[in-house]
Amino acid sequence: MMTLAPSALAYVPFVSVENMMGLVNHIGIEDFLKELAVYIEEDFKRWPEFDKTPRVASHVPGGVIELMPTADKSLYGFKYVNGHPKNTKTGHQTVTAFGVLSEVTTGYPVLLTEMTVLTALRTAATSALVATYLAPKNASVMAMIGNGAQCEFQAMAFRALCGINTLRLYDIDSKATEKAQRNLVARGFEVVTCRSAQEAVEGAHVITTCTADKQYATILTDNMVGAGQHINAIGGDCPGKTELHRDILLRSDIFVEYPEQTRIEGEIQALDDDYPVTELWQVMRGEIPGRRDAKQLTLFDSVGFAIEDFSALRYVRDKVAGTAFSERLDMLADPDDPRDLFGMVTRAEVAPAN
Amino acid sequence: MMTLAPSALAYVPFVSVENMMGLVNHIGIEDFLKELAVYIEEDFKRWPEFDKTPRVASHVPGGVIELMPTADKSLYGFKYVNGHPKNTKTGHQTVTAFGVLSEVTTGYPVLLTEMTVLTALRTAATSALVATYLAPKNASVMAMIGNGAQCEFQAMAFRALCGINTLRLYDIDSKATEKAQRNLVARGFEVVTCRSAQEAVEGAHVITTCTADKQYATILTDNMVGAGQHINAIGGDCPGKTELHRDILLRSDIFVEYPEQTRIEGEIQALDDDYPVTELWQVMRGEIPGRRDAKQLTLFDSVGFAIEDFSALRYVRDKVAGTAFSERLDMLADPDDPRDLFGMVTRAEVAPAN
Repeated sequence: MMTLAPSALAYVPFVSVENMMGLVNHIGIEDFLKELAVYIEEDFKRWPEFDKTPRVASHVPGGVIELMPTADKSLYGFKYVNGHPKNTKTGHQTVTAFGVLSEVTTGYPVLLTEMTVLTALRTAATSALVATYLAPKNASVMAMIGNGAQCEFQAMAFRALCGINTLRLYDIDSKATEKAQRNLVARGFEVVTCRSAQEAVEGAHVITTCTADKQYATILTDNMVGAGQHINAIGGDCPGKTELHRDILLRSDIFVEYPEQTRIEGEIQALDDDYPVTELWQVMRGEIPGRRDAKQLTLFDSVGFAIEDFSALRYVRDKVAGTAFSERLDMLADPDDPRDLFGMVTRAEVAPAN
Repeated sequence: MMTLAPSALAYVPFVSVENMMGLVNHIGIEDFLKELAVYIEEDFKRWPEFDKTPRVASHVPGGVIELMPTADKSLYGFKYVNGHPKNTKTGHQTVTAFGVLSEVTTGYPVLLTEMTVLTALRTAATSALVATYLAPKNASVMAMIGNGAQCEFQAMAFRALCGINTLRLYDIDSKATEKAQRNLVARGFEVVTCRSAQEAVEGAHVITTCTADKQYATILTDNMVGAGQHINAIGGDCPGKTELHRDILLRSDIFVEYPEQTRIEGEIQALDDDYPVTELWQVMRGEIPGRRDAKQLTLFDSVGFAIEDFSALRYVRDKVAGTAFSERLDMLADPDDPRDLFGMVTRAEVAPAN
């Protein structure tokens, strides 16, 4: 007589790693990045609407575990992300992530998804979106210093959004460069492998730095960077971790996601707390110019902000709706009578005997 | 040639609502509560070892969404919980919750579980555990004011841990009392239904208040409470929500989980910020006495703390290991070469053609 199957309200759509990869390939990685960038730009343009709770970092032995929440008037999202530099020694990933999107009116989760792959995509989409405002006109050559897990995603995004097809690769680990070259040549890029960072930046319109695990490493020195270039600095993303020489910062016009966070985690931790920076949401809204002239040296000091994850969650929710790229998880208790949680539990007890 | 199935590292055990109910009934609800109380007591006894990050509350239209993290030297846990008082109008639960437990050394999640049912159990187990230190000797009668979703779990825990078998029920909603009576009589309790809170507390050794959605409602007035009783106040659990008249607080010895949180959310928000309270972890460690004599009026001002959720996650992880009460979720990207996340994604593309 009694229905024991959970109601539709009890189910949360879940996107596994396999389904995320399926979704990316189904849409096409470049279209995915372009569409995702539209969502990110929409959210930057309504930046003041967001509840910008600071991320909650738990510093644990071996690394850090962070919860990054944000919300607008209709949706709430958070990402769980860990950073454990020594993980690769035991065959684990340095960074893994998953995220949840919820409806604000009920508090009910409406999406649970892997976010390791998705974070790589949102980071790349954000970088390329920002470059559409800051890179020199007709940029076609990008230096990529650091050829690890983020490298190819950045390249794909810069081609999809900025038309860049020539890449100059350098990494202290030549195996990383070989891996990136193999993947990128297969995707039709013109790839030049370089023996130094200095060689890589020669003739580049955009310089992307995405190295990892460096304590105040200076990847770029002042003499390597010229007028008119755009620097997309991805790798400096926690206290004590920077990639650029301070003199480059002083010569650049610096653009950031959220100053409160970037001053702690970004390249600008090397500068005074009141050093002037421009907030990208104001550039995207047209309130402040991005690149003003061909000689300007621009710098995106990227650290990754919760709103970009929110945009990515929103995009994935919209794209998986009605497809086979999600499963339904029975994650929310849903008793027929909300007061009778106990009855629901104990009725489950007798179910097998029916 | 290439293995496309995720490695064991990529999987996170997931306990659905159905499996949680199955686990509870498999163990037996009273044994579950007793065993869970052992885990909670263990964690209270090593209280100073925990990273007690404050909960992160996002106040959204319609309610609140909270992330409650905590960690010790080997495990990290957090709970997502919403509170939306108007949810029942649309057939949703007022409170839903899920939680994650992770290994500190890698940052990898090792458990994802529903926590709506589990929170009801941990709240009840905590209340009864605390009562083993504070309730009068040979307590056998408990008044229960508020007969909603938490009521029966409290009753089961107090029988399992304190031997209480007679219950005096009262709720302003007589349907709630009928529901609780039905469930509790079926479990062998001696149940007396009462027409007022005053009637319910007559002759009770323990008074449990667990009403909901009240703004500074006074459930208990000073004249209703006598010497020697123990009050287990569950319902006051957010700013602006209390159940007890201030004069009761002034006559009681007050015991709390974590003063920093209880002063904001608990009954004691009605008192000065430096009003003396006793921390339960010190009682459980034997550093400070619990109940000292038969005439003392004791009060557990319960708000629910992240460490109790941590204990519950730890218990569930241990109990589901090697059973069929969990599924494996493909939630963590796990490329063969950690630097080659892109290769993993794009290899997935060609998989169907193989």
